[in-house]
Amino acid sequence: MYGHMSVAAGLMPPSYPQFYARGEGAHTWDVDGNRYVDFLCAFGPMLLGHRHPGVEAAAARQAAEGDTLSGPSARMVELAELLTDTVAHADWAMMAKNGTDATAMAVRVARAATGKRKLLKAAVAYHGANDWFTPKPAGVSVEDRANIVEFEYNDAASLSAAVSAHHGDIAAIILTPFRHDAFVEQELVDPAFARLARDLATEQGAALVLDEVRTGFRLDVHGAWEGIGVRPDLTAFSKALANGHAIAALVGTDPLRSAAADVYVTGSFWYSAVPMAAAIATVQEAVALDVPEVLRLAGERFRDGLEEQGRQVGLTVRLTGPPQMPILGFADDPDKALAFAFTDAAVRRGVLLHPWHNMFLSAAHTPEVIDAALEATHEAFAELRG
Amino acid sequence: MYGHMSVAAGLMPPSYPQFYARGEGAHTWDVDGNRYVDFLCAFGPMLLGHRHPGVEAAAARQAAEGDTLSGPSARMVELAELLTDTVAHADWAMMAKNGTDATAMAVRVARAATGKRKLLKAAVAYHGANDWFTPKPAGVSVEDRANIVEFEYNDAASLSAAVSAHHGDIAAIILTPFRHDAFVEQELVDPAFARLARDLATEQGAALVLDEVRTGFRLDVHGAWEGIGVRPDLTAFSKALANGHAIAALVGTDPLRSAAADVYVTGSFWYSAVPMAAAIATVQEAVALDVPEVLRLAGERFRDGLEEQGRQVGLTVRLTGPPQMPILGFADDPDKALAFAFTDAAVRRGVLLHPWHNMFLSAAHTPEVIDAALEATHEAFAELRG
Repeated sequence: MYGHMSVAAGLMPPSYPQFYARGEGAHTWDVDGNRYVDFLCAFGPMLLGHRHPGVEAAAARQAAEGDTLSGPSARMVELAELLTDTVAHADWAMMAKNGTDATAMAVRVARAATGKRKLLKAAVAYHGANDWFTPKPAGVSVEDRANIVEFEYNDAASLSAAVSAHHGDIAAIILTPFRHDAFVEQELVDPAFARLARDLATEQGAALVLDEVRTGFRLDVHGAWEGIGVRPDLTAFSKALANGHAIAALVGTDPLRSAAADVYVTGSFWYSAVPMAAAIATVQEAVALDVPEVLRLAGERFRDGLEEQGRQVGLTVRLTGPPQMPILGFADDPDKALAFAFTDAAVRRGVLLHPWHNMFLSAAHTPEVIDAALEATHEAFAELRG
Repeated sequence: MYGHMSVAAGLMPPSYPQFYARGEGAHTWDVDGNRYVDFLCAFGPMLLGHRHPGVEAAAARQAAEGDTLSGPSARMVELAELLTDTVAHADWAMMAKNGTDATAMAVRVARAATGKRKLLKAAVAYHGANDWFTPKPAGVSVEDRANIVEFEYNDAASLSAAVSAHHGDIAAIILTPFRHDAFVEQELVDPAFARLARDLATEQGAALVLDEVRTGFRLDVHGAWEGIGVRPDLTAFSKALANGHAIAALVGTDPLRSAAADVYVTGSFWYSAVPMAAAIATVQEAVALDVPEVLRLAGERFRDGLEEQGRQVGLTVRLTGPPQMPILGFADDPDKALAFAFTDAAVRRGVLLHPWHNMFLSAAHTPEVIDAALEATHEAFAELRG
């Protein structure tokens, strides 16, 4: 397995599947025929559940007309209008394929608008497989990272110091809506920190970029920071946008429109119509059903159940971060041995968890599905303590 | 229209379509219902024609099982094996979405393998929308391009000088199989130049990267330079690989396998099964039908017809480069005014040409389709001389 460490079975608990055959709603099957309640949701894309009938019907209708044509279809305009109507700060939208495309476009637009170079990001924070951001340095040159400045997430003094140190040369500050680094407990944003980032970006003439690749349409369809009243200049979306069809989007405000029109960004499949039709159906459904609230309730049910099961066997299990996308952790488990053992026991009982990457809920994770998963994890805990 | 200049109707002849509704075989329809013989083929993805029944059936079969799952499907192994069986130098394959992903991965693998920084590329040559390569500098920092060294395509002295100047610090030499810069006549590679690039890369311990994003499966299914006996270490594919479904691939030789396993490269949809099922069907069909030969014959028929029609009205029209993907040009047309006027006249008659970017033939461009297009271009020439 190349690339993405979090799907490499060699780095996972021994019973972990490597190859998948099928998905349906909240369930997935590996190539050996084992069925799982899927708490990975393809690492984010599955917002409404695998093979959602409405989304797949929209995709099939578009596929019958055309997908990758010699230019965009009307779906692009419709999707751009839906995104600018839905996402509070968005005045325009551009489409791409990878989340990395969207974060890279954001940086390019910010640099084009400001004429400046530095990109401020939180230490450890993942923003895609770009040379600037890869968590492994193999094959990346020193120059690729020359303009990256790191600060500590939720640390006002650290952010202020980074801004002061590069005053006048800052193109953008990029942040995830909450801290979702792998291996450690997730941390919600301190609203005062978010406001400080907003104020410093404005003061510097830099763009505030919200990386919603992982959170998009799971926390708040109008933007993850709407609840705390902080609006970015640019937001990157991808994963959940079309419920599994390959698409990404960058949305932004009017002051950045001409820079967005000026940068050279493109890809052979960026105008493909099928993923856009799927995205329209997905976003409409997410808004109509208030999917973030549905996922929050499902996630709370799962979190509360797991934490209670842990208590019953004397283990402190914590699912941190927003309930829609929690990370699993145990107290006194510095090397994750307990998380690995528990995940292994759960996987053998048909519940696909992750020992160190945040997980994802979907709208197909009904109370019945959650409860069935909890029955299996109850047995997994019993095995751990047996 | 953001991004890709070659699809922005504002930069095209006045009658050019901007939005497309439908594709079928060699034809496409714009949103106003105008039908065109499509010589853009989505700028490369359409290898077998729009909505190819075999490819779409394979895609639909896979979609009924699952597309973007929580890890790869068996299709990934099957596609990797098909690519390593088909492409002569390929010992392994990695999948991605954009052509840019594949060229960027190639550079990252080369740097990881060599521990060196410099990337030698031909001046003007397009290798994707990466910060290293964008044809417009907006939003790109000086550091992003610090390790790029340019030479002249087909100029042995220029390449040798570039290598000498950076002796010992060269990670890769990247080349397209022929020179397909926009706006100018295309130029086949000089076999001696290709051999020199091979020898210099070997001598430097650098990787020779062939960028087949545009040419892949159109010139030679076993590799574009097989006919001249030059094998690269890495080849980047995308566009035509799945006949319009979003996918890219990097293939490489065994000595680079461990570097390829070591670099961090990933994307949310890189393991999606539907485009891989489509790619398997496309590559199998390309091999079975000898599609490059089919396209060569179609392209020659079109090229010879157009050049003859030009002569009949006293115009020197030249379609340069391989017949499978020619670029249109007129003698004594430095500002492309004639190319624009002719393209406009052709577009109004239902033939979608491009005035300055190379065009593409597909296997659906039968002799009947070519002849119907030539009837229309005959009238377009008449209008030009009227």
